[in-house]
Amino acid sequence: MRLLIAVYVLSIISISPLPLLPPPTTSPLYNYFILYISPALAYIIATWGIDNLEEKLVKRGLFGLDIGKRGTKREKYKVPEALGVVTGISHVVVLSLTTYLCRTSTPPTLPVLLSSLTSILFMLFLGFTDDVLEWGWTAKLVLPTVSSIPLVAVYDGSTSVVAPRFLHSLFWTPPHQSLTSLSTFLANLGMTVYPGSRVGLIDVSWVYGVYMSLLSIFTSNCINIYAGINGLEVGQSVVISCCILLHNAHEISAGVSSTQQHWFSVMVLLPFLTGSLALLRKNWYPASCFVGDTYCYSAGVVFAVVGIHGHFSKTLLLFFIPQVLNFLLSLPQLLKVVPCPRHRLPRYNKSTGLMEPSEYALPGGGKGTNLTLINAWLKVGGPKGEERLTFELLVLQVAMSAVGMCIRYKGIGRGLIFEDEEL
Amino acid sequence: MRLLIAVYVLSIISISPLPLLPPPTTSPLYNYFILYISPALAYIIATWGIDNLEEKLVKRGLFGLDIGKRGTKREKYKVPEALGVVTGISHVVVLSLTTYLCRTSTPPTLPVLLSSLTSILFMLFLGFTDDVLEWGWTAKLVLPTVSSIPLVAVYDGSTSVVAPRFLHSLFWTPPHQSLTSLSTFLANLGMTVYPGSRVGLIDVSWVYGVYMSLLSIFTSNCINIYAGINGLEVGQSVVISCCILLHNAHEISAGVSSTQQHWFSVMVLLPFLTGSLALLRKNWYPASCFVGDTYCYSAGVVFAVVGIHGHFSKTLLLFFIPQVLNFLLSLPQLLKVVPCPRHRLPRYNKSTGLMEPSEYALPGGGKGTNLTLINAWLKVGGPKGEERLTFELLVLQVAMSAVGMCIRYKGIGRGLIFEDEEL
Repeated sequence: MRLLIAVYVLSIISISPLPLLPPPTTSPLYNYFILYISPALAYIIATWGIDNLEEKLVKRGLFGLDIGKRGTKREKYKVPEALGVVTGISHVVVLSLTTYLCRTSTPPTLPVLLSSLTSILFMLFLGFTDDVLEWGWTAKLVLPTVSSIPLVAVYDGSTSVVAPRFLHSLFWTPPHQSLTSLSTFLANLGMTVYPGSRVGLIDVSWVYGVYMSLLSIFTSNCINIYAGINGLEVGQSVVISCCILLHNAHEISAGVSSTQQHWFSVMVLLPFLTGSLALLRKNWYPASCFVGDTYCYSAGVVFAVVGIHGHFSKTLLLFFIPQVLNFLLSLPQLLKVVPCPRHRLPRYNKSTGLMEPSEYALPGGGKGTNLTLINAWLKVGGPKGEERLTFELLVLQVAMSAVGMCIRYKGIGRGLIFEDEEL
Repeated sequence: MRLLIAVYVLSIISISPLPLLPPPTTSPLYNYFILYISPALAYIIATWGIDNLEEKLVKRGLFGLDIGKRGTKREKYKVPEALGVVTGISHVVVLSLTTYLCRTSTPPTLPVLLSSLTSILFMLFLGFTDDVLEWGWTAKLVLPTVSSIPLVAVYDGSTSVVAPRFLHSLFWTPPHQSLTSLSTFLANLGMTVYPGSRVGLIDVSWVYGVYMSLLSIFTSNCINIYAGINGLEVGQSVVISCCILLHNAHEISAGVSSTQQHWFSVMVLLPFLTGSLALLRKNWYPASCFVGDTYCYSAGVVFAVVGIHGHFSKTLLLFFIPQVLNFLLSLPQLLKVVPCPRHRLPRYNKSTGLMEPSEYALPGGGKGTNLTLINAWLKVGGPKGEERLTFELLVLQVAMSAVGMCIRYKGIGRGLIFEDEEL
C-alpha cells in the first residue's frame, strides 16, 4: 500500500510542471479543459465504471484465478477480467468531448485527434474481443496494422532520418558529398538522399510509414508480454506516461518548433494517465481486478499515437527499454525455439511467501528458466514478495528511461538519428 | 431460399446504376476502389470471418436459443450470437484502407471519413460490450450521444431549415417579412431568422447539432427494437442501404451541388451493404446465426453517418418510416404504461407451423397484443410462416420508402422542410 502511494506521488510530481508552461492556446477554456477537466473527468468515469462493472464481468464469465496466489486463501477468488475496458471508455469519452473543443482550432488538430481516436477505439475493440473470443496470432498482427493506417494517412511530420555517421560512406562519396549508386537506387524506390547533406539527411518517405505501423504493432504487443504479476501492466504504463509527459514538458519549455505536437501528446496522455491511476488502485497487489488484453493493447496504441503525432516516434522507443529487453529475451520462446508454456509468470512459493523464477520442461527431461525479464530479475536479485517485485520493476523502468534520456540529450544520441525530430 | 435470392437480386439491381454515373474523382484507382474493390473486400472478409467465428462464439457462451422455433427440433440448437462483430470488422477494415486513399483528396474528405470511422467504431464497441455485458439504459443513451460528438464537430454543411408555411406568422410579420419578438428571442439563443426570407429560412445553429445527435441515437436504437424474427435486422438494413444508394445515385445524376457528399455516402454504404448481404445468407430463415446488438447499433450509426455527412439528414428519416411507426407503437410498452415482457416477438404455433401475434399479461388478468409493428402486421394479415413474414415486412419497407420519396420529390415535401438540403 505504501508502495502504491509512492507511485501516485511520483506521478503527481511528474505532471506538476505542466501548468507552469506557456499555455497551448489563447483560449482559457481550452487550456483549462486540457489540464484539469479532462484528466479529472477520466479519473471519475474510470473509478465509477470499475465499481459498477466488476460484478457484471464475473457474472458473464469474464474472470480469472490469480495464479500468483496458488496455495493462499485468495487462490479461488474469482478476479474480474478485462477491466481495461473501463479506462478505455473513460479515455475515448473524454477524447470525444475534446474533438468538439478542437473543431475550430488553428493549426487544425481535429484530423490528427480523430485519427488517434480511431486507432485507440480500434485497438480497444480488438482488445476486448480478444479477451472474449481469444483471437489467433494472425488477427493479433493484422488488425493492429490496419488500425495504424489512419495514423499514417494523417501523419504530417517529417519523414527524414539522419543516417548514423559510420554509414555515411554508403550514401555519399567524399569530398563533395555526391551520391553513391545505392543512393540512386533508393531514389528509384521513392526515397531521397540529399546530396551535400553534412548531417546525413535521408528522406525515407513511405518506409517511415511502414516504421510507424510496425511501431504501433510493437507497442501494442510489448506491454501484453511484459505482464503477469499484479500491477505491472498498469504500473509500467503509468511510468511510461509520466516519462513522456516530462519529455513533453521539457521540449515545450525549451521552445522547440514542435510545441503544438507536444501539447497534443499531453492532451491525449493526461486523461489516459489518470484513468490508469484509477485502475491501478484496484489492480495493485493484492489485485481485486485484472486489466486484460483490452488494457494492454489500448495502452500500447496510445503511446504509438502520441509518439507519431507528437513527432517523437524514435525518442519514444527510449522509454520502452525494459519492454524491448523483455521482447528480445522472449524471442526464443515466442518463436518456439525453446518450449513455451501457456503461462510464464513467476511461481509463488507457499513456504516462503515469495515469488521465484518459473521454469519450462524440456522435452527430453530437464528444465530451464522461462525467458522473461521478470524471471531474469528474480534470478539476479533473489526471490521476493509480489508487491516488492512489481515496484522494483517499475523503478527499473524509471532508471532505464533516465538512461534513454541521457542517450537522447547528452551527446551520445545527438548527431546520430535524433537530430531530425526538431526539423 | 427463393425469397433470399430475391433480396440479393433486388440489391444488385439497386446498386447497378452507380458505375454509370459521372465518377467521383479523376483518379481511376480511387474510383475503382470505391465501386468494386471495397465492396468485394468487405464481402470476402465478412464471409470468411463468419465461418471462422461461429464455433468460437458458442464456446465462449455467446449463443442464444431461437424462441421462434419453440416446439420444433431446432429449439435446442445453440445459435451463435453477436455475429454483427464480423460485418463490423470487415466494414471498419475497408474504411481504414479507404482513409489512406483519401489522404490527399480535394476537397478534403479525410476528417469527415475519420469522424465517421470513429463513430462507427464507438458503436461497434458499445454494441459488442452490450452483447457481452448487457448495459443499462443510461449507457445505451449516453454512449451513442458521446459517439456522435465527433460527427457534429466535423459537420460542415448547412444548419438552416425551411419553416413550414403555416408557422411563418410566428417568425415573420407581413407584409415586409420583418421579424417577430419570437425571432428576436431566438437570436439571443444563437439562431438566425432571416428577415425578408420568402421561403422561410431559419439558421438553427447549435440546435441542428442537437438534432444530429438525437438522429444518431434514434437510428442506433430503432433497428434494435424492430427485430426478433430471422433476417429482419439485416434485411431492413439491406433495404434501407439500397434505398439510400438509389437516392444518392439520383442526386448525383441530377447534378446537385452536394455531389461529393453523395459519393461519400456511397463510399461508406457500399462495403456495409455487401458485408450485410454476407451476413444475411446465414441469418435468413432458418437462421444459423444471430447478429446481436453489435449489428443493430453499428448499422444504425452507419445510416446516421451517411445522412449527416451526406447532407441529407432530414431525407434520411423518410427511409425509416416502418422503424418510426414501430417506435411510436412501442412507446406505451417502452415507457412501461403497459406491461412489457422481456421478449415481444411473435409466437410460433406448433400445430399450424405459423407465427401468431404474441401477448402480454395484464396484472389484473386479461391479455393484450404486444405493441410492435410485427404483431400488428400479423393481426392485419393473419398468421404466416416466419420466412414469409420477414419478406413481407421487407416489402413494406420498400413500399414505405417509395412513399417517402414521393413526399421528398413530388411537391408534397418540396417547399416544406427539404428545400434547404440543396443549399
